[in-house]
Amino acid sequence: MYVGVDYYPEHWPEERWRIDIALMREAGFNIVRLAEFTWYRLEPSEGQYELQWLEQVVDLFEENDIAVVLGTPTAVVPLWAARKYPEIMSTDRDGHRTEYGVRKDTCYNSRVFNLMSDRIVERLTAHLGEHRNVVGWQVDNEFAGPKCYCVHCLSAFQHWLQEKYGSVVALNEAWGLHFWSHNINDWEEVRFPNALWSNNPGQHLDHCRFHSDVNVRYQRRQVETIRKNSPGRFVTHNFMGFAPELDYFDLAEDLDFVSWDNYPNFGDVRGTIRSDGDLDLEPRIRASAAADLMRGAKARSFWIMEQTAGPTGWGEFGRNVWPSELRNIAFQQVAHGCDGMLWFRWRTSTAGREQYWHGLLGHDGEPGRRYQEARTTALELTGACSGIVDSDVLAEVAIVFDYDSRWAFEAQPAYSGCDYVQSVLRYYEGFYRRGINVHFISSRAEFSKYRVVVASHLYVLPDETASRLNEFVKTGGVLLADCRTGVKDETSLCHARTLPGLLADSLGIRIDEYESLEDSFIYDVRATRGHKTYSAGLYSDWIRCEDATSLYRYTTPHVGDFAVLTINRYGDGRAFYLGTIIREDAFYDELAARLLTAARLPVPKVLPNGVQVRTRCTAAHLYTFYVNHLNREVEVDLAHGRDIITDEAVGGTASLGPLGVVIVENERNGEGDDDDE
Amino acid sequence: MYVGVDYYPEHWPEERWRIDIALMREAGFNIVRLAEFTWYRLEPSEGQYELQWLEQVVDLFEENDIAVVLGTPTAVVPLWAARKYPEIMSTDRDGHRTEYGVRKDTCYNSRVFNLMSDRIVERLTAHLGEHRNVVGWQVDNEFAGPKCYCVHCLSAFQHWLQEKYGSVVALNEAWGLHFWSHNINDWEEVRFPNALWSNNPGQHLDHCRFHSDVNVRYQRRQVETIRKNSPGRFVTHNFMGFAPELDYFDLAEDLDFVSWDNYPNFGDVRGTIRSDGDLDLEPRIRASAAADLMRGAKARSFWIMEQTAGPTGWGEFGRNVWPSELRNIAFQQVAHGCDGMLWFRWRTSTAGREQYWHGLLGHDGEPGRRYQEARTTALELTGACSGIVDSDVLAEVAIVFDYDSRWAFEAQPAYSGCDYVQSVLRYYEGFYRRGINVHFISSRAEFSKYRVVVASHLYVLPDETASRLNEFVKTGGVLLADCRTGVKDETSLCHARTLPGLLADSLGIRIDEYESLEDSFIYDVRATRGHKTYSAGLYSDWIRCEDATSLYRYTTPHVGDFAVLTINRYGDGRAFYLGTIIREDAFYDELAARLLTAARLPVPKVLPNGVQVRTRCTAAHLYTFYVNHLNREVEVDLAHGRDIITDEAVGGTASLGPLGVVIVENERNGEGDDDDE
Amino acid sequence: MYVGVDYYPEHWPEERWRIDIALMREAGFNIVRLAEFTWYRLEPSEGQYELQWLEQVVDLFEENDIAVVLGTPTAVVPLWAARKYPEIMSTDRDGHRTEYGVRKDTCYNSRVFNLMSDRIVERLTAHLGEHRNVVGWQVDNEFAGPKCYCVHCLSAFQHWLQEKYGSVVALNEAWGLHFWSHNINDWEEVRFPNALWSNNPGQHLDHCRFHSDVNVRYQRRQVETIRKNSPGRFVTHNFMGFAPELDYFDLAEDLDFVSWDNYPNFGDVRGTIRSDGDLDLEPRIRASAAADLMRGAKARSFWIMEQTAGPTGWGEFGRNVWPSELRNIAFQQVAHGCDGMLWFRWRTSTAGREQYWHGLLGHDGEPGRRYQEARTTALELTGACSGIVDSDVLAEVAIVFDYDSRWAFEAQPAYSGCDYVQSVLRYYEGFYRRGINVHFISSRAEFSKYRVVVASHLYVLPDETASRLNEFVKTGGVLLADCRTGVKDETSLCHARTLPGLLADSLGIRIDEYESLEDSFIYDVRATRGHKTYSAGLYSDWIRCEDATSLYRYTTPHVGDFAVLTINRYGDGRAFYLGTIIREDAFYDELAARLLTAARLPVPKVLPNGVQVRTRCTAAHLYTFYVNHLNREVEVDLAHGRDIITDEAVGGTASLGPLGVVIVENERNGEGDDDDE
Repeated sequence: MYVGVDYYPEHWPEERWRIDIALMREAGFNIVRLAEFTWYRLEPSEGQYELQWLEQVVDLFEENDIAVVLGTPTAVVPLWAARKYPEIMSTDRDGHRTEYGVRKDTCYNSRVFNLMSDRIVERLTAHLGEHRNVVGWQVDNEFAGPKCYCVHCLSAFQHWLQEKYGSVVALNEAWGLHFWSHNINDWEEVRFPNALWSNNPGQHLDHCRFHSDVNVRYQRRQVETIRKNSPGRFVTHNFMGFAPELDYFDLAEDLDFVSWDNYPNFGDVRGTIRSDGDLDLEPRIRASAAADLMRGAKARSFWIMEQTAGPTGWGEFGRNVWPSELRNIAFQQVAHGCDGMLWFRWRTSTAGREQYWHGLLGHDGEPGRRYQEARTTALELTGACSGIVDSDVLAEVAIVFDYDSRWAFEAQPAYSGCDYVQSVLRYYEGFYRRGINVHFISSRAEFSKYRVVVASHLYVLPDETASRLNEFVKTGGVLLADCRTGVKDETSLCHARTLPGLLADSLGIRIDEYESLEDSFIYDVRATRGHKTYSAGLYSDWIRCEDATSLYRYTTPHVGDFAVLTINRYGDGRAFYLGTIIREDAFYDELAARLLTAARLPVPKVLPNGVQVRTRCTAAHLYTFYVNHLNREVEVDLAHGRDIITDEAVGGTASLGPLGVVIVENERNGEGDDDDE
Repeated sequence: MYVGVDYYPEHWPEERWRIDIALMREAGFNIVRLAEFTWYRLEPSEGQYELQWLEQVVDLFEENDIAVVLGTPTAVVPLWAARKYPEIMSTDRDGHRTEYGVRKDTCYNSRVFNLMSDRIVERLTAHLGEHRNVVGWQVDNEFAGPKCYCVHCLSAFQHWLQEKYGSVVALNEAWGLHFWSHNINDWEEVRFPNALWSNNPGQHLDHCRFHSDVNVRYQRRQVETIRKNSPGRFVTHNFMGFAPELDYFDLAEDLDFVSWDNYPNFGDVRGTIRSDGDLDLEPRIRASAAADLMRGAKARSFWIMEQTAGPTGWGEFGRNVWPSELRNIAFQQVAHGCDGMLWFRWRTSTAGREQYWHGLLGHDGEPGRRYQEARTTALELTGACSGIVDSDVLAEVAIVFDYDSRWAFEAQPAYSGCDYVQSVLRYYEGFYRRGINVHFISSRAEFSKYRVVVASHLYVLPDETASRLNEFVKTGGVLLADCRTGVKDETSLCHARTLPGLLADSLGIRIDEYESLEDSFIYDVRATRGHKTYSAGLYSDWIRCEDATSLYRYTTPHVGDFAVLTINRYGDGRAFYLGTIIREDAFYDELAARLLTAARLPVPKVLPNGVQVRTRCTAAHLYTFYVNHLNREVEVDLAHGRDIITDEAVGGTASLGPLGVVIVENERNGEGDDDDE
Repeated sequence: MYVGVDYYPEHWPEERWRIDIALMREAGFNIVRLAEFTWYRLEPSEGQYELQWLEQVVDLFEENDIAVVLGTPTAVVPLWAARKYPEIMSTDRDGHRTEYGVRKDTCYNSRVFNLMSDRIVERLTAHLGEHRNVVGWQVDNEFAGPKCYCVHCLSAFQHWLQEKYGSVVALNEAWGLHFWSHNINDWEEVRFPNALWSNNPGQHLDHCRFHSDVNVRYQRRQVETIRKNSPGRFVTHNFMGFAPELDYFDLAEDLDFVSWDNYPNFGDVRGTIRSDGDLDLEPRIRASAAADLMRGAKARSFWIMEQTAGPTGWGEFGRNVWPSELRNIAFQQVAHGCDGMLWFRWRTSTAGREQYWHGLLGHDGEPGRRYQEARTTALELTGACSGIVDSDVLAEVAIVFDYDSRWAFEAQPAYSGCDYVQSVLRYYEGFYRRGINVHFISSRAEFSKYRVVVASHLYVLPDETASRLNEFVKTGGVLLADCRTGVKDETSLCHARTLPGLLADSLGIRIDEYESLEDSFIYDVRATRGHKTYSAGLYSDWIRCEDATSLYRYTTPHVGDFAVLTINRYGDGRAFYLGTIIREDAFYDELAARLLTAARLPVPKVLPNGVQVRTRCTAAHLYTFYVNHLNREVEVDLAHGRDIITDEAVGGTASLGPLGVVIVENERNGEGDDDDE
């Protein structure tokens, strides 16, 4: 397995290079990423190229048996270029050209920028593409945004629409411009959407798609150059988990595999401590789901191109990785299909915006506790755990992740706090807490590969997709849909149909009315059979069962006629619908069990709090990962087998240390013995 | 009575029109509003007019005995016009021209826009003005803003000031430009005010007045064209309750009557549920007061041009109308003098910004529960309740509503959370909870028509108005004034007098000092006689009684010498002054009783929580409305008489259903029997 | 002692002047400030000067034995000038030129503005500079900002950098522009920093320094003109306490003494009441510390040029000064070294932005309670207390106040809520509550004058300063440093050293890791000896003692190895280090005692809540001030001696009235008797 760090030789005096490389080798590292912010160093003035120093660094690593991934340096254009060709800088929504001084601030529709970018990528790949020690490439860095609103981009948007819709009449129809009589007579009348809560949902959605396409096309230009000049090397890009800007299924298409940057402690997460003294598990569940999405984007295992190495942040930074946490964060990703990992970064920069985005080493360059823990982890990963590389992550349960729906909600959240990712995660967590592997799939994926498909908040639902979901149920699948699923067609017009639209076939329900609710307001909910009660809020579909059976109902009088959760037998399958947001986690645990049962799958028990269980497998072996995300010991029931890290036999009730990890190896098909409820 | 809907035939295929109209007729509807957003449909390119389709729609309604109100379509200019004549779009405070794509975004001082607007209004009114089925006109849509800051508007503002002040010397004086030596030498040096918390209060106030005048003048242009081309039809405009931008007394002047758009569930109001499980009554009290202001703007009954039909909102929407609520909202307005009502809108749009501003029908076009409830309501209004149309709303109590004061507070709220409308509503609610009819009047109105006049926060108080208020008291009236009343003259300079200025004559007090207080801070207050105590906050006048008598005093030591509430006998009347904000509602109930008693009016009991009582009357009959604003049964004492809806005799203790309504008819002068405390 | 008011004769009719002056004289006032906003009045159109009216006012005051301080009127340029020479107005960060209408909005790098400013200052000082009744000058008004981003300023910034760094290579190095390869090839490529959380910390810091320098240089131009035309008069400027924009040590350099504007009740402070009913002491402690900084800026006594006279604020104003509070606020400043005081302002303006920044008199011009209280205070200050003028404020404890560190934190607060002033005040308050005099000093000051030096959050620490701190300890001083001290060098690059860098010599500790913590998160802390426990939060250094001794440790397991508070003997002194933020005030009281003890100074008891004690002294006498900041009586132990206000003997337990003041005079060296714990 490839394990290493992101390294910036250009930040340190040459005499330090050998010290750093010796320490890396000592830590068992076998790979580094280099050069993704070095455009100025490679081309200090226009047309003057300096590639020798980088070649020298690649050579030096080769001498030390450490392979190199090179980043193309296009994420930061040199200042001389921005001064000489101002039009290469992006323009914000108010028409102001971005000032030089950050990164990711160029216009991908600027012909000049594309020419400059082509030239540096050509030079770099031509010079080092066939170097023996270069094993792969990272294109640019963290594609996302910002959206550019310059005249070139406007013109590109107009052409993109023209290509898509063919005629102005079709565009007026697709965007529903008859409303408030905003009709367009001419392509040049098309403007950018003019607010986040868009006046025109279709315009907003198409602009999001356009922006994603622009990035995908820009990446493709570079991929083609790399493949030409550097045959046999892998090409990847560092994605950002649940970042909202780009359709990652599209972005992954031209790459060999997906890499991503994992910073679970970044952002508001500093102490991440709940009032009961335990670590907050939310960031870890999110990192788990993000890994599943990253694997799903290409439907294969992935790399971590930047892994948390210390406190992260810019002006304010966050919590340090606590003892064992750096290892815990690393192994969680391996459990999800990570087959290569580089810590970001080697040594904390003394300069620039990221002075406090800490590396394994501090500003002082001394190998300390974090270095030692990374070393331990690297030696385990490249040693005892090396058999896991290229193993599969199999799943019977799929969650649809749909960027169209996500973008459409940006313009119209419908209810307070509506968040597409969170909506999906509510169901994800029900499976997570039972240790069930889950795949994230596109709405264009083949549903029949799975036994259970969750289509939460699938807001934009073209008829073709709805038909495929119905067909999935008819042929034996188990579907869960929920509120706001199926409201829109592919142009973000509302379907002129009673909800849930075409899905009524499989769901067997009818929703004439619905409403959003004040944050603090609760409708009471009770099981149709038995006495379980829950609290519903934020949003409510007023559901009438036609063919379906109601599993939960409202008990608040004026909505007392309506169902909350329904099940319907359709063909050989079952289709569930949940018409509100339930507050209690236990409901989603129960729902996961219902879905698994309906799909005739085993229903594992809910795991002890803080413990995550996931599996990977090869043809011969099953690897069950037990990861403790709490900073204290927890009891857990281990599968019987061999702990590959300690090489000891384990099984039955055992104790997992604070933030500890066990990986149990079994012969294939031996799993599941103690999984029944 | 006219009851119907706002209809957008241009949103739906022609073949749907007959289905919609049949359903409307079935519901008892007899009016629709059409065409207020159809400029592009009427003039798809410059000078090319298409009026035939609209005439066909008007004909179709005529065939079905449904009358038509036509809206002039000037609230949304066509995109081709904005592209061809960019100067017609308004300019924001930062000098950016508004981008096309919303509505109400043109410049009313643009000569080009005025010419274009004249032309389309001329064409439309010439073509359909004398159509038999057109009974009236709505000018444009929801005049308000935004304020435009273009060069044409600056020049217009300079001329407006020149006309008003005559000389630069007078303007320097009026705005007090000697402060910080901001003096003007030349009219062209006048700029727009440059912040909300204006550096110059006079400049801010005059700019608000100017903006209001610009709208009034623009409306007048259209009214004149309509009256010329469409004789005998009414002309109205849809106002927006407590919207702050325009002086509605001025805007009403050129119209036959006021209409308004009533959305009590819009905005933050979603579940509108209080912690005790009851519906929050605040939005309903506000809708009640807004109706009184709308009636007051023209001192006559009004229409609802857009009435709540379902969940409302843009990106986020709100609560559905619950069972009986659509009818409850409608009847509340009738109680206040509504004589015509149109629900907004017929069917929910599948396109555009208002996809979630729901109509009676959903996106699916099916007549459901909301349609049925509207039908019931319409049949009651046009049937059993038809005798109420044109009846009067009489009142002995008037509340002054003054746009000058409201605008002046925008620049200088004085204390945290100071809100002019809320200040006025505190007193309003005291009367509301006792079922007392109230009129809202301008500060220019004839006070002597009333027994009680409330002048709350009458911040801008010209000497002439102060004298008229003193005269009102002297000749027997009962006046209530409160803190911040009388601080400013008509140019927003502070009166160089000890507060309360000229009103000291009638109030008999002197205020040497005053202060604003931190939100959480409380002064304790106690009755001079008896033991009642209250909590005062936010603001405190340090009042000394000269001729007046103190009814409440502070008990906090360092303000212990000062009065809180005073009464003074002046001539034949009484003048009260309240120098702080009391937290408890009960204080305002008590104060209403004191004012009524001082005016020798009966003092009805405080009504059960949630129940609203109002009266309308004809020469022969008194109609007493009982409206339950809670979603559960309440007990109420009904007047003895005939419930005109059920045509049954009622009287004494009775139960009002959830959100229910009773209208008791009596012979005139039979009222008041059980109104004494 | 000079006591008086800020007076604006230009706001009032000439016939009022004599009334005002008679009232001032009656109140014992002997000084007024005039003219600082009169540019238009002095030059109503270009080149037309009108100085006669001002001379007449100065004469009138002379006749009444009231001296005059004149303000140069450059803080508000006339409107005609802004219209004629638009480039004199400053430009905001987005490139918009500031609109005329406020103040302090001109560009100090504009050649035109400088010429105009020179001309009016020359005219005014030439005309009145030698008037017998003019005793001093205030330059301009409240220098601070805003920062101007026009082309002239950009060019000036580039030249300032060129002068400082000499070569582009040196600038690339200093700002660490290799990070993200932002390197500069040419001086003209330098731009302004482009966000508050700067992409480049060095660029941000240099820009703050540049802005401060620009103000200092602009002031110097005026000082030179005044000194030429008005020999023998003092020159001062009105500072603003803890205002962040300028290095006040630099700004003070060209002045004779510092004045400042003291508004403790301004801002969020309205009722300033805590839940227990007492006044909030925070604003008074801050006013106390601000006074110490103002005295420290020039290391000599200061004036209050604007003293709180009533409610303050613009659109919203605050609490009135309560009975005795105006006097309390005044005497607090005298205790800190105030030797001249003018209340702002005489009479409340009826016009302009400051209609509610209340003076001693209200809008009505009547002498009321506030006037009477100011009169009492003025008579005490000019009578019984006159011996205090020019007495010293001596201190053994110094707190370093460093603008470089403060500015660097703006770009990188490191932890949530990090506020440089608050960080410094935590230690200040420990001394405050024991009645210890404290000096604020620059990091360039001579440390050896003190026994204790507190260097809190001394983030930017050049090696030379670190060496001087080590030397201070070595030669017997007591040093306290804390977290984030010593992170940066003078260019805001991180030191590439293990923390605490060079200070490790004196501190005897090593910090390999550190972290910021979520607001609500707590690490438990316990004394190494004894059982005292505290709560640590926000930030944590993981401290290992090398030579130092741990006084407090963490008890939370995973940081259990690390020290919280350490002490180290180094040479003849002691060095303490605190690696976190302790929540409890008591900790800082204890720490102050530890520092005093280590310095072999007496340790006075913690004072009763609300009481402040400070001393001033002359060669012969010690004056001990006891100031009660609560609005109720408190018990206090008075030193034995003469209360100079009442001229009575006092001593031992006594009661201080609400907001009351006692000043005890002793023969020098009689202090300290009851100061031991």
